[in-house]
Amino acid sequence: MSASIVLKRTGQKMPQVGFGLWKVTKSTCADTVYNALKAGYRLLDGAGDYGNEKEAGEGLRRAISDGIVKREDVFVTSKLWNTFHAREHVGALARKQLGLWGIDYFDLFLIHFPIALQYVDPAHRYPPEWFGDDGKVYLANVPFSETWGAMETLVDEGLVKNIGVSNCQGALLLDVLRYAKYAPAVNQVELHPYLSQEALIKLCNTLGVAITAYSSLGPQSYVELGGSKGAENLLQHSAVASIASKHSKSTAQVLLRWAVQQGLAVIPKSNNHDRLVQNLQVEQFTLTDDEMKQLSSLNVNLRLNDPADIDPRMAIFA
Amino acid sequence: MSASIVLKRTGQKMPQVGFGLWKVTKSTCADTVYNALKAGYRLLDGAGDYGNEKEAGEGLRRAISDGIVKREDVFVTSKLWNTFHAREHVGALARKQLGLWGIDYFDLFLIHFPIALQYVDPAHRYPPEWFGDDGKVYLANVPFSETWGAMETLVDEGLVKNIGVSNCQGALLLDVLRYAKYAPAVNQVELHPYLSQEALIKLCNTLGVAITAYSSLGPQSYVELGGSKGAENLLQHSAVASIASKHSKSTAQVLLRWAVQQGLAVIPKSNNHDRLVQNLQVEQFTLTDDEMKQLSSLNVNLRLNDPADIDPRMAIFA
Repeated sequence: MSASIVLKRTGQKMPQVGFGLWKVTKSTCADTVYNALKAGYRLLDGAGDYGNEKEAGEGLRRAISDGIVKREDVFVTSKLWNTFHAREHVGALARKQLGLWGIDYFDLFLIHFPIALQYVDPAHRYPPEWFGDDGKVYLANVPFSETWGAMETLVDEGLVKNIGVSNCQGALLLDVLRYAKYAPAVNQVELHPYLSQEALIKLCNTLGVAITAYSSLGPQSYVELGGSKGAENLLQHSAVASIASKHSKSTAQVLLRWAVQQGLAVIPKSNNHDRLVQNLQVEQFTLTDDEMKQLSSLNVNLRLNDPADIDPRMAIFA
Repeated sequence: MSASIVLKRTGQKMPQVGFGLWKVTKSTCADTVYNALKAGYRLLDGAGDYGNEKEAGEGLRRAISDGIVKREDVFVTSKLWNTFHAREHVGALARKQLGLWGIDYFDLFLIHFPIALQYVDPAHRYPPEWFGDDGKVYLANVPFSETWGAMETLVDEGLVKNIGVSNCQGALLLDVLRYAKYAPAVNQVELHPYLSQEALIKLCNTLGVAITAYSSLGPQSYVELGGSKGAENLLQHSAVASIASKHSKSTAQVLLRWAVQQGLAVIPKSNNHDRLVQNLQVEQFTLTDDEMKQLSSLNVNLRLNDPADIDPRMAIFA
């Protein structure tokens, strides 16, 4: 179990350390989720795009039926993919995703990216990912406000308890707040010492929007995808290793602790059980102010997950 | 006269080098504008917020009546201030600003910032600037889409020929394009070698949105405002000076040339006539690829004009 962040509108507690389902192998996902819950995780961070919601749901429901957790003890997050931003698709997809999980509400539902792509019928291809059948990117003219309004309807219908955004920088987030009936509870963004996002953290703290940091462990998660952009492995960085050694912790624990100690939530994933357990144990030690600063000083505004790398018309971080 | 950028929807030509009215002294503004036009400037970049539109208009109209220019030869830009974002205020302010200039259309009208502040009656205080009477910042919940729709109405009414945005980064600009009847023709942003904005340039080029770079000469413009953030004066930077010396140009001309050679428009101001003339002469020389790269390599993402410095709830660049 980890400490929690109290979400603004509902007062619901979101565990500060959760288990991230991105790249969790489909064939072992149910067992991994089951074991994560057994190990004490109480937040599962999924997404339609991860392609493993059915298996994650199996693991969750097995843990419930084995008495390891109750549904209400687990904070389940999922995300709406870019192809489903139109008002008429948001509800259908939320229902489909809940059906895959085999649960009747999400604790948090996020708009995965502030990018609207043309609709792909899930019967044709699911998850649809970034490209059309011809390998090209097709943008759709669905204003973000339309998608946000449909997300609010999910709250009113009881399908989701909290709603939020992901990959949202300042100006767009501020615009959502101007028209929102329910303000975004969470903004889930890439955040690690190479991309410390101090200005965004300050803004979100001011607005009462909780931040979940993804890719907390840095470039290493992108190596298998060919997207680490030549950056030095943070898990083996000498500054991180030196701090880890002083605290007798792993470098992963130090990187997670750096985020958690700033009040952020984190969602590490691991397909390895020992690391999965270690990642949850980031509240039994405290980094000194100097260590926090040393880690923050590694910032080079390195963004590993940037849709502009796929298509220049998706430069949401420009 | 300078080269031009062809604006997308109207095909109108926007001069690449214009005269910026920010901080042009009110008492001498009419003469300065008159002399700028006489020296060959064909773009005047004003704003409600600059507090000198009446005087700028006097200079323009005198130049017209003296036969130096015709109205249609001069590209006049103005900007809508943050307190007038509500649909019912946009038209009234455009008309007021045209009245101050004494002209019947703007060639380009921009939303000055993607920040909506509470309305201040111009009869009470004009320009209203950032603060309420009590010195506090009051945000208003006017969605950007509402303001953009009202800007489009100005086009339909013939009050403005082109419309655009200013201080807009990627995600918000992309959202405007989703709901726009008329896409933004221009995005006017801070841009100089310390803030080279390569990703935004690439995005705007892809989208066909022209970029006007402001604060091309860097921190020096902010010294008198106490806002140069400790940055080294670009006008005296050794790398810039060395390039200037090779071309027998001023450092200001090199900084302007660096932008113009990237296809950007620039809007330097000067209260000094010789520099005003020099600034227009940035098309008689070409920087080498290596010189361009040297200047671009000075980038440190230094943003001099950031409303978050006034109030953390205005962190549009976070």
